[in-house]
Amino acid sequence: MTYCVGLKIDRGLVFMSDTRTNAGIDNISTFRKMHVWEEPGERVIVLMSAGNLATTQAVVSMLDERSKAASDRVGTLLETPSMFQTAKLVGDTVKEVIKTSSPDGQTADSYFNASIILGGQIKGGEPRLFLIYPEGNFIEAGEDTPFFQIGETKYGKPIIVRAYDPAMSFAETAKLLLVSFDSTLKSNLSVGLPLDMMFYERNTMRVGFRKRIGGDDPYYRAVSDGWSNALKAAFSSLPEFTED
Amino acid sequence: MTYCVGLKIDRGLVFMSDTRTNAGIDNISTFRKMHVWEEPGERVIVLMSAGNLATTQAVVSMLDERSKAASDRVGTLLETPSMFQTAKLVGDTVKEVIKTSSPDGQTADSYFNASIILGGQIKGGEPRLFLIYPEGNFIEAGEDTPFFQIGETKYGKPIIVRAYDPAMSFAETAKLLLVSFDSTLKSNLSVGLPLDMMFYERNTMRVGFRKRIGGDDPYYRAVSDGWSNALKAAFSSLPEFTED
Repeated sequence: MTYCVGLKIDRGLVFMSDTRTNAGIDNISTFRKMHVWEEPGERVIVLMSAGNLATTQAVVSMLDERSKAASDRVGTLLETPSMFQTAKLVGDTVKEVIKTSSPDGQTADSYFNASIILGGQIKGGEPRLFLIYPEGNFIEAGEDTPFFQIGETKYGKPIIVRAYDPAMSFAETAKLLLVSFDSTLKSNLSVGLPLDMMFYERNTMRVGFRKRIGGDDPYYRAVSDGWSNALKAAFSSLPEFTED
Repeated sequence: MTYCVGLKIDRGLVFMSDTRTNAGIDNISTFRKMHVWEEPGERVIVLMSAGNLATTQAVVSMLDERSKAASDRVGTLLETPSMFQTAKLVGDTVKEVIKTSSPDGQTADSYFNASIILGGQIKGGEPRLFLIYPEGNFIEAGEDTPFFQIGETKYGKPIIVRAYDPAMSFAETAKLLLVSFDSTLKSNLSVGLPLDMMFYERNTMRVGFRKRIGGDDPYYRAVSDGWSNALKAAFSSLPEFTED
C-alpha cells in the first residue's frame, strides 16, 4: 500500500510520503512516491501518488518528459497558467494512462488505479492542494478540509483531525505527520520507511526544506518512542470510569 | 458498518459494541449487536456481530431458539461442553445461515457475510475469546493478540495497541474502549451511539456490569472531550523538530 499526506497551513504546504511498494506481501520494494518540479521564482509543483506503481510511474514519466521537451512545452507541467490547470493536466494524464493500461478503458475499480495528491504554487496564484481521483477529476483542499491523505489513511487520521491547526509552524507539522505516519507504520506492514518530507513556504516559489527520514533518524526515533509514553500519559490523565 | 471489541485481561473479558446499522447512508437504524446467554454459576456466553444484519440476526435467533427448546438442547449454546465447542457451534450456524441466504452457497466475499466475536466461560474451563469468520472457522485470542475487533477496526486500533495491559482493571478497560470507540465514531458515520458495554469477571460464571452508553452519558462526554485535550498535550510533550 502507501501512505501520503498533503497538508495546507497558513505558512504554506507540507508533504510527506512513505516509500514502500509491494506486489504481494513477499515482494516489497522501495520507490520514491514524492515528485517535485521547480522553476525557482516561478512555480513549485509537488505530486504524491498511491496505487498501481506502473500507472503512477507512467503518469510521472509522461508529465516529466513533456516538461523537458522544449518544442512541446505549451500546456505542460512547467507551463500551465494556474494550479487548477495543472491539476487538470495531471488528471487527464492519469485518465490517459489508465485507459491505455486497461483493456476495457477507464473503470473506477480498475487494478490500474492511481490516486494523486498535487500541491504547489504558481507565481500570481495562491498555494493550492488537490486530490486527484483515478477518473481524472479532482477536489481542492479548503478551510474545512485542509489536508488530503491517500493510501492507508485510517490509522493516521485521528491525530491529524485533532491536532491540526492552520497556524502551525513547519516544525509542528513535521511532528504531527511523523506521529500520524508512525501510527500507520505500526499497523500496516505495506507502509514502510524511509519517509520523504518537504516544506513549501508560501510565496517563495522555491522548494523548501526536504529530508528523507529513515528508521535510524534520531528525531523519528524520539517521536516514535515518545508517542507511546505520551499516549499512555494522556490516557492516564482521563478521569476514571466508575460503575454507577 | 459496525465497531465491536472483545478484550481479554487477567481479570476476565470485556466487550463493547456500537448499535448502528445502515443500508446506505440514508437508512440508519439502531440494533443491539451484543447478545448474552447466561446460566448463572454454569456459563456466560457473549456474542457480538458485524456484517449483514439479516445474517447476524438469523444466527442469533437460531442459536437462541435452539437454546430454548428443551427437547433439542443437546449440543446447543447452553449445553456445549467447552468454549471451543461453542465457537464451533456458532461457526457452523454462521455457515449454515450464509449458505441458505446465498444463492450459490458459501462464498467468502458474499454480501451475506458476518463476522463474530464470541467470548465467555464455561464451568471447568478458562475464559476464552474467539473471532469467527464468515466461513465458519475461527481463531482464539492469546497472549500476543489479547483482543479482537470487527467492523471498522482501523481508527480505534492504535490506542488499544499502545495502552492495553493484561493487568488492567475493568474500569481502565472501559476508559480504553471508550477512547477507541470515540476515535472511530468521530471518523466513520456508520458507527454510532449508543454503545453496549459488558464486563465478565473470571470464574464468576455470571454476567458482570452492563451498561448502555448514550451520547449524554457524563463519563463518555468526559472521555470524548478530555481526549482531544489530552492528545494535544501529549503531542506538545514530544520534542520539537529542527531542520538539520
